[in-house]
Amino acid sequence: MIQIYTGNGKGKTTAAIGQAIRALGHNYKVLMIQFMKGDPNYGEIKTIKKLKNFKLIQSGLPTFVQKGNPTKEDIKLAEKGLELAKKAVNDKKYQMIILDEINVAIDYGLIKLSDVLALVKNCPQEIELVLTGRYAPQALIDIADLVSEVKEIKHPYQKGLVSRKGIDY
Amino acid sequence: MIQIYTGNGKGKTTAAIGQAIRALGHNYKVLMIQFMKGDPNYGEIKTIKKLKNFKLIQSGLPTFVQKGNPTKEDIKLAEKGLELAKKAVNDKKYQMIILDEINVAIDYGLIKLSDVLALVKNCPQEIELVLTGRYAPQALIDIADLVSEVKEIKHPYQKGLVSRKGIDY
Repeated sequence: MIQIYTGNGKGKTTAAIGQAIRALGHNYKVLMIQFMKGDPNYGEIKTIKKLKNFKLIQSGLPTFVQKGNPTKEDIKLAEKGLELAKKAVNDKKYQMIILDEINVAIDYGLIKLSDVLALVKNCPQEIELVLTGRYAPQALIDIADLVSEVKEIKHPYQKGLVSRKGIDY
Repeated sequence: MIQIYTGNGKGKTTAAIGQAIRALGHNYKVLMIQFMKGDPNYGEIKTIKKLKNFKLIQSGLPTFVQKGNPTKEDIKLAEKGLELAKKAVNDKKYQMIILDEINVAIDYGLIKLSDVLALVKNCPQEIELVLTGRYAPQALIDIADLVSEVKEIKHPYQKGLVSRKGIDY
């Protein structure tokens, strides 16, 4: 089945991670590929490393991608992430595959919507495929089984607060 | 700071768990109290047990609470959960306290909004207090720092699918 967490609010990546934590308890093997993220200082990375059957791969640079002006390396790493995802879908080694921020990678032009659509359509029903990130394209929403939109009602950013260790990363 | 995850979509409890996983990586001690939940078969319970510094307490019955007609035991357990939360806020042993489904416990009349408001207002700024569940009352939203509304756009329930092991529990 296909799950999508999109919208402008906090809670999309964390919802996917929480979903993985739940699945692990029932002996799922979980793969999480993070697009556009390369910073090793996210707290979740340290915790996930300690968990058996939960593999996390970052396929991005630690720096932000500039919308409309991605570097060749940004594109290369996003494409690599997509290749890894395709392989995982075919191998069936993992029962849950999380493609974190993939919606943004499409929106920023790092990877093609048509390639992601092909991947999703090719995904066996018994694999839980979880896509996260703002700007989920309608074509993905149309073929997903479950879509949650996380809406920002309030965020400390609005008051100028910078991102917080343990909370935002 | 106070975070609230509310709304009718999937991803509130999992977002709180993912938030905990992130915080643990930066050496937070986390307490999660689950209101209205007493079923030991949630996958997250098994995984969380293996994680150092993450304590989970269920303070509810395994059966569903009937809205408008809770049992004495439902009320007693919810009140007990609230007492544990108050103690944790005062003890400052945990840097993150998650009160899972507490919004629903208020909405169902198991605990009083005024008591939860007092708890939240009494919570030191350095503790991250995370409240989840549908029907977050406006008075809580007003005093929270971060509020995300998880909206259901699509859910397999809509097609009659029952809850799935590893995904919904």
